[in-house]
Amino acid sequence: MMYGAIEAGGTKFVCAVSDENFEIKERVSLPTTTPEETLAKVFEFFDQFELTSIGIGSFGPIDVNKKSNTYGYVTTTPKVAWTNYNFLGAVKERYPIPVGWTTDVNAAALGELKKGAAQGLESCIYLTVGTGVGGGAVINGKLLEGYGHPEMGHLLVRLHPDETYKGFCPYHGNCLEGIAAGPAIEGRYGKKGHELADQAHVWEMEAYYLAQALVNYTLILSPERIVLGGGVMKQEQLYPLIRKEFEKLMAGYVAVPSLEEYIVAPGLGDNAGITGCLLLAEAELKK
Amino acid sequence: MMYGAIEAGGTKFVCAVSDENFEIKERVSLPTTTPEETLAKVFEFFDQFELTSIGIGSFGPIDVNKKSNTYGYVTTTPKVAWTNYNFLGAVKERYPIPVGWTTDVNAAALGELKKGAAQGLESCIYLTVGTGVGGGAVINGKLLEGYGHPEMGHLLVRLHPDETYKGFCPYHGNCLEGIAAGPAIEGRYGKKGHELADQAHVWEMEAYYLAQALVNYTLILSPERIVLGGGVMKQEQLYPLIRKEFEKLMAGYVAVPSLEEYIVAPGLGDNAGITGCLLLAEAELKK
Repeated sequence: MMYGAIEAGGTKFVCAVSDENFEIKERVSLPTTTPEETLAKVFEFFDQFELTSIGIGSFGPIDVNKKSNTYGYVTTTPKVAWTNYNFLGAVKERYPIPVGWTTDVNAAALGELKKGAAQGLESCIYLTVGTGVGGGAVINGKLLEGYGHPEMGHLLVRLHPDETYKGFCPYHGNCLEGIAAGPAIEGRYGKKGHELADQAHVWEMEAYYLAQALVNYTLILSPERIVLGGGVMKQEQLYPLIRKEFEKLMAGYVAVPSLEEYIVAPGLGDNAGITGCLLLAEAELKK
Repeated sequence: MMYGAIEAGGTKFVCAVSDENFEIKERVSLPTTTPEETLAKVFEFFDQFELTSIGIGSFGPIDVNKKSNTYGYVTTTPKVAWTNYNFLGAVKERYPIPVGWTTDVNAAALGELKKGAAQGLESCIYLTVGTGVGGGAVINGKLLEGYGHPEMGHLLVRLHPDETYKGFCPYHGNCLEGIAAGPAIEGRYGKKGHELADQAHVWEMEAYYLAQALVNYTLILSPERIVLGGGVMKQEQLYPLIRKEFEKLMAGYVAVPSLEEYIVAPGLGDNAGITGCLLLAEAELKK
């Protein structure tokens, strides 16, 4: 077996190939430009191997609804060159082998569940907090997809009493992403997060929003674990602050695991997504 | 085959038996008193039949985690006689046959998916808005359970700018249940909902909260349909108001079905729960 993986991000594509033990044989990182240009480089890389299946974890929104005419498309992304682009179709045309298709964050959730911080469990959420906020999940051992895919980053949250920033989400203004992603920190304080590492109030406000989201995810999905990754979460002081605020907001209503085990950092670091894509390639082959 | 069903509510128990086509042969409604007294009457009813399996949909919170020592228990309910009561164990002791176990609202979601307003789909949410707010879901054709079960009614929501009521939830004050269940309407206006049927502002505020919850459920779970039942939803003017507010809040960000098909009344009326329990009995037998 030789699995191919495409972790398709808005700024870069990571491609990798592995054997059936998910040991990565080769990988490459490419800038995301136009679909044609980017995929030409992806194909150049994959053409060197005899792939048996491929897994794609893509930035979105994407169409994951198999009943839809545009299944496999990138849909309403603000990256105009990719809007309504048949991404899955282009890959399947080049490689007539099984190709798995989901969001980048669903792939990361799968990676963490099978090989990372949520091993041995049947459900987890993976939330990335960086230039945006995105979430994916595995529930009952399966990727969470329904009519579409989760867009957990756009949750409507209660504003902090001291909030002065209006939020940057073009759709919802001050939804979770609009008020808690990296650009919101910069928009509120005029400095990037890593320049504010020692400012306690910055991270208390950030934890206020993220904990609120985690409480709502818990009430709705009841996962066994929540993995928090992405650039903003490199500020490790956030983890205990989020756990503390979560406990306060939940007020003991719902039984959850001990919070040190429940709200955790990724076990695979920045490799959660690409690992998940390899696992997706395996799953697609076994279908 | 002869299936038994227990829809266990906080004020009454409904028990039914059916054949393998889910045609109800006999049913009974009993007041919920102490576990011993209530179950004695349940057993008296079921003892008349040769059951092949049973499905229980229970009020909660309950323990649905098979890895837990208290799996099958009613846990932290405010109904003290039932706190930490081994409900599933008591039924299994009496009837050594397969017994399915989930929440009342998960059972209702299953009923609506297989026999009601969400037939032919693989996912739906069932939300009941009555003396409390509770939600269950089927995702990828399976009941939504993880570390625990959903408690969607306790979602943290943004307060309406005109809100004056502080909320009645003993855990969270003004969470969704605390601010939008029947007692909140009565607490805010001093009258019951059905006495306020012609007061437009009452239902606009109610729709404001319910739509907000539905947006967040959609962003997190991406179901194919949302079924809204319960006493408060007997005010049918709520459905169009909720759809309108949902559209405004979502701002076109996520693709959803046409809202008339997406946000709907139960197809089974008040029989969603008991039907779901019968379906659960079948599923347990086939395991």
